[in-house]
Parts: sequence; C-alpha cells; structure tokens
Amino acid sequence: MSSHWNGTFSCFDRVVRTDSCVRTIVEIGDVRIGGPEFVVMAGPCSVENERQIMETAEAVQKGGAHMLRGGAYKPRSSPYAFQGLGLDALKLLKKARERTGLAIVTEVMSELDVDVVAEYADMMQIGARSMENYSLLEAVGRCGRPVLLKRGLTSKIEELLRSAQVVVESGNPDVVLCERGIRTFETATRNTFDVAAVAVLNAVTHLPVIVDPSHAAGIRELISPLSRAAVAVGADGLLVEVHPCPEKALSDGNQSLTPYQFKAMMRELSPYIELRQKSLQPELVAVAGDD
Amino acid sequence: MSSHWNGTFSCFDRVVRTDSCVRTIVEIGDVRIGGPEFVVMAGPCSVENERQIMETAEAVQKGGAHMLRGGAYKPRSSPYAFQGLGLDALKLLKKARERTGLAIVTEVMSELDVDVVAEYADMMQIGARSMENYSLLEAVGRCGRPVLLKRGLTSKIEELLRSAQVVVESGNPDVVLCERGIRTFETATRNTFDVAAVAVLNAVTHLPVIVDPSHAAGIRELISPLSRAAVAVGADGLLVEVHPCPEKALSDGNQSLTPYQFKAMMRELSPYIELRQKSLQPELVAVAGDD
Amino acid sequence: MSSHWNGTFSCFDRVVRTDSCVRTIVEIGDVRIGGPEFVVMAGPCSVENERQIMETAEAVQKGGAHMLRGGAYKPRSSPYAFQGLGLDALKLLKKARERTGLAIVTEVMSELDVDVVAEYADMMQIGARSMENYSLLEAVGRCGRPVLLKRGLTSKIEELLRSAQVVVESGNPDVVLCERGIRTFETATRNTFDVAAVAVLNAVTHLPVIVDPSHAAGIRELISPLSRAAVAVGADGLLVEVHPCPEKALSDGNQSLTPYQFKAMMRELSPYIELRQKSLQPELVAVAGDD
Amino acid sequence: MSSHWNGTFSCFDRVVRTDSCVRTIVEIGDVRIGGPEFVVMAGPCSVENERQIMETAEAVQKGGAHMLRGGAYKPRSSPYAFQGLGLDALKLLKKARERTGLAIVTEVMSELDVDVVAEYADMMQIGARSMENYSLLEAVGRCGRPVLLKRGLTSKIEELLRSAQVVVESGNPDVVLCERGIRTFETATRNTFDVAAVAVLNAVTHLPVIVDPSHAAGIRELISPLSRAAVAVGADGLLVEVHPCPEKALSDGNQSLTPYQFKAMMRELSPYIELRQKSLQPELVAVAGDD
Repeated sequence: MSSHWNGTFSCFDRVVRTDSCVRTIVEIGDVRIGGPEFVVMAGPCSVENERQIMETAEAVQKGGAHMLRGGAYKPRSSPYAFQGLGLDALKLLKKARERTGLAIVTEVMSELDVDVVAEYADMMQIGARSMENYSLLEAVGRCGRPVLLKRGLTSKIEELLRSAQVVVESGNPDVVLCERGIRTFETATRNTFDVAAVAVLNAVTHLPVIVDPSHAAGIRELISPLSRAAVAVGADGLLVEVHPCPEKALSDGNQSLTPYQFKAMMRELSPYIELRQKSLQPELVAVAGDD
Repeated sequence: MSSHWNGTFSCFDRVVRTDSCVRTIVEIGDVRIGGPEFVVMAGPCSVENERQIMETAEAVQKGGAHMLRGGAYKPRSSPYAFQGLGLDALKLLKKARERTGLAIVTEVMSELDVDVVAEYADMMQIGARSMENYSLLEAVGRCGRPVLLKRGLTSKIEELLRSAQVVVESGNPDVVLCERGIRTFETATRNTFDVAAVAVLNAVTHLPVIVDPSHAAGIRELISPLSRAAVAVGADGLLVEVHPCPEKALSDGNQSLTPYQFKAMMRELSPYIELRQKSLQPELVAVAGDD
Repeated sequence: MSSHWNGTFSCFDRVVRTDSCVRTIVEIGDVRIGGPEFVVMAGPCSVENERQIMETAEAVQKGGAHMLRGGAYKPRSSPYAFQGLGLDALKLLKKARERTGLAIVTEVMSELDVDVVAEYADMMQIGARSMENYSLLEAVGRCGRPVLLKRGLTSKIEELLRSAQVVVESGNPDVVLCERGIRTFETATRNTFDVAAVAVLNAVTHLPVIVDPSHAAGIRELISPLSRAAVAVGADGLLVEVHPCPEKALSDGNQSLTPYQFKAMMRELSPYIELRQKSLQPELVAVAGDD
Repeated sequence: MSSHWNGTFSCFDRVVRTDSCVRTIVEIGDVRIGGPEFVVMAGPCSVENERQIMETAEAVQKGGAHMLRGGAYKPRSSPYAFQGLGLDALKLLKKARERTGLAIVTEVMSELDVDVVAEYADMMQIGARSMENYSLLEAVGRCGRPVLLKRGLTSKIEELLRSAQVVVESGNPDVVLCERGIRTFETATRNTFDVAAVAVLNAVTHLPVIVDPSHAAGIRELISPLSRAAVAVGADGLLVEVHPCPEKALSDGNQSLTPYQFKAMMRELSPYIELRQKSLQPELVAVAGDD
C-alpha cells in the first residue's frame, strides 16, 4: 500500500491489503469475483412482473451477463413511488435463476428481511442508503451469503471500508465493494462517478471492487463509456441496469439499457476486458498459487 | 410558501406548510416544541455510567435545559469504538428523568430496538446515518412517541422532508426536524452548518426545526456563536452535547461543552431567545387560537 | 486561537490573529469596519442607469446603510448577458456619493481596470471568481484603497486567508473578508451560507468579516433571517443587494430587496445589532486602548 | 446531443456540437488534437533550471510525448512558495523546443503576460483558478495561439463551456478543454477525477477534451490507472507531470512521475490507445472528409 493512505486505512485490519492477504476471490456458485474474470451483473432496477424479469434474464444471459440483478424491496424515492413486489419478486427471481442458471443479486433493506432474502438470493446487496445501517450490516454478516456493499452517496472511501469491516467482523469474509457515484455539485450527471476510488480500493483492500455505471451516470448514453473506464481502471466487474422497455420501467428508466444496447455494450467492452486480463495475469497467477 | 420551492416540495403533502396548517407543536410532557418556547436538549453523546449521566442531567437542568439527551446505542464510528451500553443506558436515562424531571431523547438505530427504546424514552431520535432507513422510519412511525429526525450528512432538504413524510404517513404526526451540518469540501469545521436550511424549512413545512451545533461545528469554541445564529435564524430549539469532563468522554469529547460552559452559553443566549419570542408573538398567538 | 486550527493557518503570518494583533479596523472615510459599528453596504447588483442608482442610493441611505454598492464591471454569467456600464457606471457611482455622502464599494475584475476603479471607488471589491487571481490581488494590494475580498465559491477558509495575505504582503493592510456562500450539493438555496466560517475567521484572523446574504441565499425571502444569523454569529457587517424594481433588474433580481423590504429588514435587525454591540463592548474597549 | 442536456448547453452556440459541426481539430505545428491521434503533453509542474527542463524534455520525448508542458508563472499556493522563473522559464522552454522539436504548452496567469507568453509558447494554458477570469479569457481569445482551458476546481460543465465560448467569441476557435478533477468531500485523492465529464463533453461540444490525471489524483500511483480510464472513456489526450527527481521538485512532487515511470505508463497505455483509434476510425474518417 502506498504510504499516502497508510495511516488512514490501517485500522480496518480485516479488509486492508497486506503482504499476506493480497486479494480475496468471492465465489457465487461458478462465478468468481476478484479473479481474472470480469463479472457482469445485469437486470432491471425493480422486478415488475414475471414476463419482464424472465425476458430480461434471458436477454442479459445471451448478452454475456454472469449474474442477474433485480430489486424486490425498493427504497421509497418519493412518498407514493413503487416500493417493490417483496416476496413475490424473490420468487420470480428464483424462477429466473432456474430458467437461466444466472445467480441472483438483490437488495435487502431491513434486518427483518435478511432471512427471507438469504433464502432466495445468491448474493445480498446493501444499497447506498444502507451503507451505514450497522445493525443491517451485522445481520448480513451472519447470513451466510456473499454481500455486495454499495458505497454511500456521500461516503468517503474510509467509511466504505469501515462498513466492510463490520460485515467481515460479523463473520462474513465474502464482501464485494461497489462504486456507484458520489454526490457533488455537478448536475450534468446524476452522480459523479469516482473512478479513482476503484484504483484506491485496489491499492488498499484485498476485497473485489465492481462499478455501477447506471447509478453513477443516470443517463443511458454514458453507460458504455463509463463501463470502458471501469474496465480500464481495474474494476472486477459491473452492475448494470437493463430493462426490456426502459420508457415503461417503474423505476430508473432513464438509466436503463435495452437488451439490444446491453449486447452492443458487451461487444464493445470485450477487447478492453481482454486487455485487462492480459495485464492481470502475472499477479493473479501468483495469487492463485496461494489458494 | 415562496413560489421558488413550490414545485419541489409540494409532493410531501403531509408535512408541507399550507394556509390551513401553518405550524405543528410537538408536545413531550410539559415541553412544547414549535411554540413560543425555545427548547434546549442537552447531555452527553453517550451514556457512559451512572455517575456521568446523573451529574450531567443535574447540571444541564440547572443550566436551563428542557430535555436530556444521551446515547444508549451508538453508530460504530470505528471498528473498535465504544458502541454504547444499550439497555443499561436506557435504564440510567430513566433514573435521570426520575431525579430531574427532564424528558429523555435518545437514538434508536435498529428496528429491533424500537419497542425497548420507546418504553424508556420520551422522544425517539433518528440519527443522520439512519435518515433514509425507511423500515426504521416506518417503525418509529408506529411507536407512539414523538420523533426527532436528524438530517443526513448529505441529504437535501427535500430528502429530509421525504423521510418526515414517511414517519407521518406511518401514523405519527409528531416529528421535529434537526439540522446538524452537511458534508462539504470545507475541513476547518467538522461539517458545514446549513443555517439557511432552518429558514427554508420554516418557510415550507409546518414541523418544528431544531439545530445541533455540536455536530455541525465539531469544535467546542464554535458552539456558542452557532447557537446564537440558530436562535436568530428562527430555530425552535437546540440539541447540544455536554459532558462533565469532555477530555475523558468516550465519544465526541472535542465538541462537548462542560457544564460550566453550557451554563455560560445559556446565559449568553437568553437575550437572543427573548428577542425571538417577541418577534414570534403575533403569529404564534394566531396559531394558538387555532388549537 | 484554538489549537484546533493552529497548524492550518499559522503560515498566513500577516493576517492571523495573535496576542499582539487582535483586530484590524478598516476605515473608509467615516466608516469603520471591524469596530463596534455594524456596517451595512447596500445597492444594486449592477449600475444600470442614473435614475436607478440615484434612487437606490437615496433609499438605502434612508434605510440605514453606511455604504453604497453597485457593479460597474460584471462577470459574464452567460455569453450574451449584461456586462456592466464600465466607466459610465463609475461616474454615476461618484455622483451618487456626492448626492448622499455614502462611500462606494465596487468590483474590479481586471488588472487593467485597477487604476480607474481606484480613482472612483472608496473600496475595491474582489469578487468570488477572482479570489485566486493572484496578479489582480497584487494589483489591488498596491492601489491605496481598502479591499473587500469575497470568498470563492469553493474556497476553503485557508485559501481565503492565503489570498488576503497576498493583498497585505503587496502593501495593503486594509482588507475586509466577505463570506458569501459556498457551492455544495444542496439546491434549495443558490449557495450554502457557511455561517460557521464567520466564527472561525473571527477566531483566527484579525481582519474584519462581513456577510453577503444575497448571494448566499439567492432568494429574497431568506435575506432577512440570514442577516439576523450573520449579526448573531459575530459578523462586522453586511453586503446586500437592493434594487428599486427587482423584477426589472438586469441581474440578480431574484435576490434583491426592494427599498421598502430593505428598510423593514434594517428595522428588524436593529435589536440584534444592539445586542451584538453590548457583547462586544469589553473586548473592543480593550482593543481601542491598544490603538 | 442527448435531449438530456439540450436545454442546459444550447446557449453556448459557438462550442456546442451540432450536425454541421461535429468535431474541431486543433493544430499545434504537426500535432493535431481532436483527431485520431491520442496526444500526450508531459513535463514538470514548474521550469526550475536549464538542466531540469532539458533532461525532462528529452526524457518525455523518448517516452512518447507529443508536447512539452512546464510552468513559467505559478499560482501562489502558499505565501512563500516558489512562484516560477517567469521570462527566464519561457526562454528555457524555447530552448527545449529547439533541442527536441516538442511544441510548448505553458500557463498564462495575468492579462499583462499574454503577449510575452504568446511569443514563446505554442499553446496558452488557462489554469483552473483562472477559468472564470473573463478578461484573461478575452485576452487569450485575441492572442493568436491555441488555448488549453482547464476546468475550475468547482466549475460545472456548463461553466467550462461558457468560458470556452468567451474565448471563441473573442476570435479564437482553437480551444482544447481539460478535465483535471473537481473538489468534493473525498480526501483520499487530491481531487475527484470526473471521468464522466469527458463523456458528457464528447457528447455536447465539438471541442477536443484532454485529461490531467496528475492534478486529478495528486498521487503518483494513481496516474497510470486514471490515464487508462481517460483513454477508454474517449479523451483526446493527456497532460501529465514528469520530473527527473520528483522528491526534489519545487512544486507538485507527490504527483509527478519519474521519466522511467512515464515511459512505463506510455508502454502500458499503448494497447488502450490502439483500441481507441480503432473504434474512432469510422467517425473520424467522415470528419476528415469534411475538412
């Protein structure tokens, strides 16, 4: 680790990168995050109905995704907004997994829902608004499923690591971090994608780091260039919103790709992913030898 | 309401100020927040032991406080930091109330603790980190106790009102808002006290608004001038940290006043509070007539 | 000075407060900024024509202002926006001074204009956008007129002091600082008024500090409460926009008071100003003794 | 242009991208910015002495740079900091150009220096602190040299375009924009590299856009990953700090690469640059046809 950050992060002893712990690989079924493979999780913001989630699951699988995302419980972005189908959504996600074989990542927002989400999902997502909900972090730390921990809208990198440390301390070493844009004065984009955070995290923690370009940008046209930047900077994967018909989406339509656009983006990304794998080879071979 | 904000806030129909609903007065025992009285809540960041909380309670009462604050459950500001005494702290707060008659405000961080906190506390505090924990907001919305809702570190005013609306919709009209500083680029203070937010909230919502100068400043020397500003701008009260021996405090020592400093601050504030009451008189008389 | 800021600011040796240099009083004719008097500078954003500036000058004088503000050279807030009348405006300001006796403060934006502005103005304003224009700072440092230095939109307090130091080093000890709101994520107000910055500056520098509530808020309704907060926190004065007919103003109409509103605000402020003077008395008497 | 930004930027009619004006190519001698070539400008923060600038010039040329950067006039980052060699530095830069053939880009900070800088430099840099110094922008707009316009520390994208419009309106169509990190709450990096701004600018303006990863990151270890992100997101070039002995640099040593590190970075970037060129081909061929 560069001496620059040494003092700042060293107290997070369970997550900082050390000579004896360079990289953690988080396994979700066959998918390995943090290794040579660049892992793409795609799907709708919210699970809306059976047809929508099945169509999307099949489309993203064909497009090259490794996991299916989809919200069952949604934060109330306005008093009367759609709040998710809850348990029914979890059942539909399970059905989509049976059909496509894609592992499922979905958000848990309440401690009271941890058990039921863990029953259906392969990976538990902690959303940006919950990053400092410590009792929820402790609960997912005990749930036996890998955790996708999203950075808070205005959380410093050290606060993200502190939250990761809480999950690991609670008994769960399988944490993947997610940069998803921070809140700044700039309003031309929904948030400001802090691409350097990925590089800093790669330098200071052994946990894998993925990027959510959909929330970082908030604008469909930017997802492809930001995804290229994410691959190039050294991210381990992407979390991206895809909807069969974005203009009819119940949430986040503006930032969702169509299945066709997703496929095009994946094709465009593929030479960048190849480059990334070539450059990682030496280090990862060494790491694999440590397993 | 100024036409400036009209579009922005009108969707929060349960909390916006209208001609027929100008001000809410929240009652906690004899204490009335939102009326002519300027209400001061004071006490330590955390309840540490019986002697500390009893000494502080008696000191702040003598100094002129109307309510006692004190943390039973603490957010984990670092992996190995003090996390609060939990139930034992609640029992000590109850004892302090019996001794001094001061009503108790304390934070609840987990849905699972709502019932036990509601049993002991007179007012439920939702901390800045929990402002968007919607399941917790719904739980305190059903708990039967008034709620002190702190603004998130990087929450916009409209997001604070959205969270307030969730509590009110869940059945609880007794919500007091609290401005406690926002996160900006400035590092000379811990946070940036958004004094204008108080004025905006007074213009757009009927809910009372208090100020936490301790967290806003993070520096003891600033608490007195910021409290003067809070009174002058039109806040309904203060939430301020007092500790018998700040340099030995288990948390937030740098921003805690000694009992002596608290008393001096209250004395200094008193002419400003008088001025505020004089200027409010006409409007408040009208409001009281509506009761 | 609190030990908290000691390291941060001590390098600005010409402007930091020390035991031997507690306060600077800047004199502009009869007006003394930094002493017991609370100094109000008022006037339009831009000088638009003779009638507008004369009417405003007379109105703010009657309302209780001590100095007249008015822009001759304007930053180009959009490519085709009004850019000020330049020399003609300076001549009108001079005429307004002759009529009312009010000293003039006006902005200089270019090194090439320093001489001409210094010929007409009593005080040279450096705008927020120019706070780090070091060659301009050096030029006003040599111009022989007191300087009103506005904080940059996203300048830290230490950067404001650095710029003040450049002016003082260039030979000009008569610098007044101005807090005018900083850029943050909050959009309910034009900028975020950093009221704590006034308290910090009072603690760390001997230079006077005034507040511009018009730019800090950007909304007419907020100017009065923010001005009260400014007085209460310990500011030495105000810079406030007044226009005979805000809805027809060529710039900043939304945040300008009418002469009538200005008068009402001054009346409302007066008991706060009295309080401030009472509390300052002991210290200022001591300081005056040092003169 | 996406309808998302349409309203925001369309008033900057001289710089927005339209069907009839898709891309501007700025020529500095043989170097063409905005075309298929990815242009790298490298060199020290400040010109310190003849040996330093000559060594650096030769090293960056061998490493693959197309232009030489180096500061002659420096902003005063602290009262007693190094302020640059001025005219002597300009003469040394000229000498370095004669030796290596590299075109020179250097900052002009004062209107009074525009003529002398234009005499020696091939491209005039407007620094972040000067982005809203409109009289300076107008002066470089008349100077006959291409301009490198850096985004202000807390400037919105629309404000960057507004400043670019001022330069173009003043008679100079040869403007290259530079994203160099914005000020946010995050302190793990010096600034926050707003990589999405490059993608937004590519969508909304016909002007070329380059990236300064040295200032964006402020930390040597991050320059290489951020440069990869810059290439991948679609930047037209880089501005990067290189010093023969960073630990002895008079300014910005922490963020300067050694010549060896620069060479390694350029080698690592080369496959990404190749990818970028392949993907640009069809569009650029069309554009070249318009010439």
